[in-house]
Amino acid sequence: MNCMIAQSGGPTVAINASLAGVLKANEATKSYDKIYGALNGIVGVLHHNFLELTSLIEEEDNFIDRLIHTPAMYLGSCRFKIPSGDEGQEIYRQVFKVFEEYQIGAFFYIGGNDSMDTVDKLSKYGASINSSVRIVGIPKTIDNDLVTIDHTPGFGSAAKYVATSVREVAWDAYIYAVPSVTIIEIMGRDAGWLTAAAALARTEDSPAPDRIYLPEVAFDLDAVTEDVRNILKEKNTVVLAISEGIRDKNGEYISTTDGGSDIFGHNHLSGAGKTLEHLLKEALGVKVRSIEINVLQRCASHLASRTDLEESVRLGETAHALALAGKTAVMASVKRVSGTGFDGTRPAHECVEDASSPYQVAYTSVPVSLVANQVKSVPREWINAEGNDVTDAMVNYLRPLIAGEPHLSYTDGLADYLSTKHLYHVKA
Amino acid sequence: MNCMIAQSGGPTVAINASLAGVLKANEATKSYDKIYGALNGIVGVLHHNFLELTSLIEEEDNFIDRLIHTPAMYLGSCRFKIPSGDEGQEIYRQVFKVFEEYQIGAFFYIGGNDSMDTVDKLSKYGASINSSVRIVGIPKTIDNDLVTIDHTPGFGSAAKYVATSVREVAWDAYIYAVPSVTIIEIMGRDAGWLTAAAALARTEDSPAPDRIYLPEVAFDLDAVTEDVRNILKEKNTVVLAISEGIRDKNGEYISTTDGGSDIFGHNHLSGAGKTLEHLLKEALGVKVRSIEINVLQRCASHLASRTDLEESVRLGETAHALALAGKTAVMASVKRVSGTGFDGTRPAHECVEDASSPYQVAYTSVPVSLVANQVKSVPREWINAEGNDVTDAMVNYLRPLIAGEPHLSYTDGLADYLSTKHLYHVKA
Repeated sequence: MNCMIAQSGGPTVAINASLAGVLKANEATKSYDKIYGALNGIVGVLHHNFLELTSLIEEEDNFIDRLIHTPAMYLGSCRFKIPSGDEGQEIYRQVFKVFEEYQIGAFFYIGGNDSMDTVDKLSKYGASINSSVRIVGIPKTIDNDLVTIDHTPGFGSAAKYVATSVREVAWDAYIYAVPSVTIIEIMGRDAGWLTAAAALARTEDSPAPDRIYLPEVAFDLDAVTEDVRNILKEKNTVVLAISEGIRDKNGEYISTTDGGSDIFGHNHLSGAGKTLEHLLKEALGVKVRSIEINVLQRCASHLASRTDLEESVRLGETAHALALAGKTAVMASVKRVSGTGFDGTRPAHECVEDASSPYQVAYTSVPVSLVANQVKSVPREWINAEGNDVTDAMVNYLRPLIAGEPHLSYTDGLADYLSTKHLYHVKA
Repeated sequence: MNCMIAQSGGPTVAINASLAGVLKANEATKSYDKIYGALNGIVGVLHHNFLELTSLIEEEDNFIDRLIHTPAMYLGSCRFKIPSGDEGQEIYRQVFKVFEEYQIGAFFYIGGNDSMDTVDKLSKYGASINSSVRIVGIPKTIDNDLVTIDHTPGFGSAAKYVATSVREVAWDAYIYAVPSVTIIEIMGRDAGWLTAAAALARTEDSPAPDRIYLPEVAFDLDAVTEDVRNILKEKNTVVLAISEGIRDKNGEYISTTDGGSDIFGHNHLSGAGKTLEHLLKEALGVKVRSIEINVLQRCASHLASRTDLEESVRLGETAHALALAGKTAVMASVKRVSGTGFDGTRPAHECVEDASSPYQVAYTSVPVSLVANQVKSVPREWINAEGNDVTDAMVNYLRPLIAGEPHLSYTDGLADYLSTKHLYHVKA
């Protein structure tokens, strides 16, 4: 009996650690003879495009440990949503035909919301044909927006990247004795978790970021301008952390499409940071710069959170154990058993009873149908009354997730990642 | 007898290491009783705005080592250019009056081109009044564009940041099985050194960046478009590293000011990356994204080059020794005694005789007048004939500079930097 695994959605620093967890568990138990890695998600399943991971473990030195520390997605990704209706049914039929052909006993899918929807639908189809293939989801997303789970794999590392960057940019901003505003734009179109992590950059002496704006609260440009003007009366350096997804009270994004076009005839879209930069510069007449924390927040393995990597491995191991125990239509999950937790299924203040105890987690499973197509937003009670900062409870929730540094091996000054040349898609 | 030190220009990850070098040398020799750190460059000298660094060494735990690993500029910066003529003479007079008042035997100024110009002018004024104050420059700039020195402190760490980022972004780009172009824009308005460092991201398997465009060669948009179109016939993922300073054969920057204005009435300036993104998207009809490697390339101490930090400390120590030896109007410098070097004063091929020997450097001094207002561009012979890549000699020159990882101490998952609260400029 064999098993199959695939990855989907956007990368995180920890998604390969979950893949490694499945491999580790199988090395320990030898439950499945072969583990097929489908390339580019469900598309690879449909096209019989596989890596035989069990052989790679034997062929490559230290494969599993290097996989844990390799950025992005070792098996590649896809943005393929299985259609509904007959077309979808035909795809499910094909997928299960592949499972049969390769003697697959379990299929693991690592991904976010959409992938959990696929897990849910595949499970339902499997049940309808009385298939014995176990379908198990493994969560991941830097956005931390899945419900039923305390925090998602990949989020802790992204949060560590954000907090580190904000701290370093703040030190950079402090050097000039002139009034200035530095805007740091952070990923998260709908959920503000990653932007909230900017709060971790603060120290006893350094208040940066001075303000934090999440998409969960309407952004009031006039109030923010007035507020920044007032801060500048007190001190020279103002640092703002904003989500790319901030929007006004009508739900309009604080980003602009140019009315005109440039000399090449194109319309340029400016993001929230750039837009706010122009608006504040105009209103305040001081130096304003905006910095977009780019895709590195999802792929900077050199700055991974050790906690995140270890938990992601454990979630892979948990998924493997769930399949062996005969579970299907489930997602491996992690809950906080002490410390300040939040799984999005009950109000935040009901999760903080044990807030003073040290961070501790347990690995569980949840029905995947509870996860698919739900979003865990930042609870209003973890944002301050003015809507321009997060509370201590949020900081307590976030802090343990970024703890610990990765154990990387370096060659010539650069981290030595596993090659992903099987993804290069060289054309014939 | 005391000494004084200040920092100027833009930050680098290693500029505090040079400051630490001066302190270390003085701890070892006890040559100067007090070391005054002038805040915000020469402006701090004029305003008597000092930190007494000798006290801080005693008061703060592990001060020198933490200083080495602290980003940006511990003493702050200024963008103050001393005017010429009578106004300038009056400023020099004031500066030397401060030196006299504080019993200063040596003044150290850490900076780039402009700062070396200040060192030059201060030295000349000092000579004209028969001052005994030694004026010594300590180099720094991420741009690596100073002549008479093999490479500048701060450059190696920035190069390591660039190479790491390009590698991680490449892994991120490989995951989708669709044609795509990723443009990575790197700092360096006039000199292409930092963009060239993108070449270090390559591995045996990973060709990213596929092309490298420096400001030293005219950027031919039509040829580049055709070239990228051809690469896309072979494989899906194209990664381009471009300097922010690329310009066409007429010397015009490949960046745009919008002809129109946005809904708020502002003109937005798009950089080279964003501009090229739009142009290639239009011409090729594939997914194109651009990523700007932002100010973190100059302040990401978490990814400093150990080699860079150690050399920067040594340059601070060298400057201290030069002052003690009675030298003035000089800059502490580093030359490569084996390996592929280039100091900008002779053709590159004359520096590569000993290319196969391991990297080794020696610390020297150069007359600061040779450094001020000169620029070390990338030599044409280190760029390939087509003008879209760098040569092996360039890679050999760059590789040793990024070697080694910093010895950071972490608290709660974040690097524990020295507070720079003395720079916050809180208003009364």
